[in-house]
Amino acid sequence: MKIVLIGAGNVATHLGRKLVEVGEEVVQVFSRSLPKAAALATELGARPVDDLYGVTAKADLYIIAVHDDAIGEVLKKIEDFVLDKLVVHTSGSTPAKVFETVPELNRTGVFYPLQTFTKERQLDFSEVPICIQASQDADLLVLEELASKISSNVYKITDAQRAWLHVSAVFVNNFTNHLFNIGNSCLGKKQLPFEMLMPLIRETVAKLEDGSPKDMQTGPAVRKDIKTIERHLTLLNGRGDLQEIYRVLTKHIKRAHADNWKH
Amino acid sequence: MKIVLIGAGNVATHLGRKLVEVGEEVVQVFSRSLPKAAALATELGARPVDDLYGVTAKADLYIIAVHDDAIGEVLKKIEDFVLDKLVVHTSGSTPAKVFETVPELNRTGVFYPLQTFTKERQLDFSEVPICIQASQDADLLVLEELASKISSNVYKITDAQRAWLHVSAVFVNNFTNHLFNIGNSCLGKKQLPFEMLMPLIRETVAKLEDGSPKDMQTGPAVRKDIKTIERHLTLLNGRGDLQEIYRVLTKHIKRAHADNWKH
Repeated sequence: MKIVLIGAGNVATHLGRKLVEVGEEVVQVFSRSLPKAAALATELGARPVDDLYGVTAKADLYIIAVHDDAIGEVLKKIEDFVLDKLVVHTSGSTPAKVFETVPELNRTGVFYPLQTFTKERQLDFSEVPICIQASQDADLLVLEELASKISSNVYKITDAQRAWLHVSAVFVNNFTNHLFNIGNSCLGKKQLPFEMLMPLIRETVAKLEDGSPKDMQTGPAVRKDIKTIERHLTLLNGRGDLQEIYRVLTKHIKRAHADNWKH
Repeated sequence: MKIVLIGAGNVATHLGRKLVEVGEEVVQVFSRSLPKAAALATELGARPVDDLYGVTAKADLYIIAVHDDAIGEVLKKIEDFVLDKLVVHTSGSTPAKVFETVPELNRTGVFYPLQTFTKERQLDFSEVPICIQASQDADLLVLEELASKISSNVYKITDAQRAWLHVSAVFVNNFTNHLFNIGNSCLGKKQLPFEMLMPLIRETVAKLEDGSPKDMQTGPAVRKDIKTIERHLTLLNGRGDLQEIYRVLTKHIKRAHADNWKH
């Protein structure tokens, strides 16, 4: 399959590398920045292009992996020469109805890899959930076949499911990482290294193999340990922002485990 | 070294197993529940006891691994026959001044393993940070030697450092696990399995090998993506509790990365 990658950011880079690795042909890489397009294109054996009107009409699949806000604009610029081609975006938060702005396109879809991508990191794509949607059943099969080549976790989902996946990803990735940042800054106050928390963080995740996160909940909020909660809040005096986060999450843990607090 | 374990819960169980594994002698296990004391004592080759007045005076080290609120009570009951012995507790949140309630004890300390313990899980103790304190320098050496037998991460810390470690552990373990729970419930609404989030969760932690959590922050809050934030908050309509958590953490991420938002 001849593929055009529109975008040269984190998602495009990781996806492009994996597609080439499994034998797909990336023919062009677009970026508004020619050096960025050239860097990725060279790596993938493709041609770089920094003008959307220069995108070839002779590919089978167009993967739009740009900032959410730019998807609509990209579609308008390429629609004339991709009318009968399969066009997908990789966004977790952009509804498929973005394609309604270009009604002439009748073969559209979504190819959303649910992962946090960093260019410099090696990533095992084979476990990344690939969430696919397509406006036509035949194209869903095409995307399923392609996704199955790069990952063993392929899911056919709806817009509504993707929206909830995306917000869940914010909770378990973005917000979790910020809690790690808070832990780091608390330790920094006392000249303690962040490495001290790593075994605990690793075990927090490893425990999920044994049961649902709800069953794995520990700590003062779930065991009704009001003294410890108050001690922590006192310690956080002068850091009202951390007290606010502590209070809100403690309140919500209490509520989610209300059965414990009734006794 | 002859050790008495006071407590038969998660910490006592894991610590006791490891101490025996490295050749220490656990002579007694106390629990108010005789079956619990007996179960752990049998495993460790020790004698069970369910009455603190039955605790032997002939051990070298007494490790109090009970609920924080019970430490003071335990100390009062055992003080008469452990006067010249080393007595430590394993609590993250109990200041060493708990020992001031029994001023006759002059060899006291803390032996705090910074980890989340679940009885049923196998745990690699060798990486668990052991945080030690002692009222006498000679005893600090004793605790250091013992801790070094069971872990390669031994830290001499102060009460203040331990307090901050403990609150950090709440942020990176308890609160993080609750965010996983929220992710799970969001996916459950749409009949999606929690396993879909596991590769993302694993990568969130793996990325910490590459840099500080602050440097690894991604997501709409740090990239000034107000549209996505608003879309998420709309999606969470009807779940005011999740909106509250989303708003508070987003606000705090913005503040922690204020440089991004200035441009």
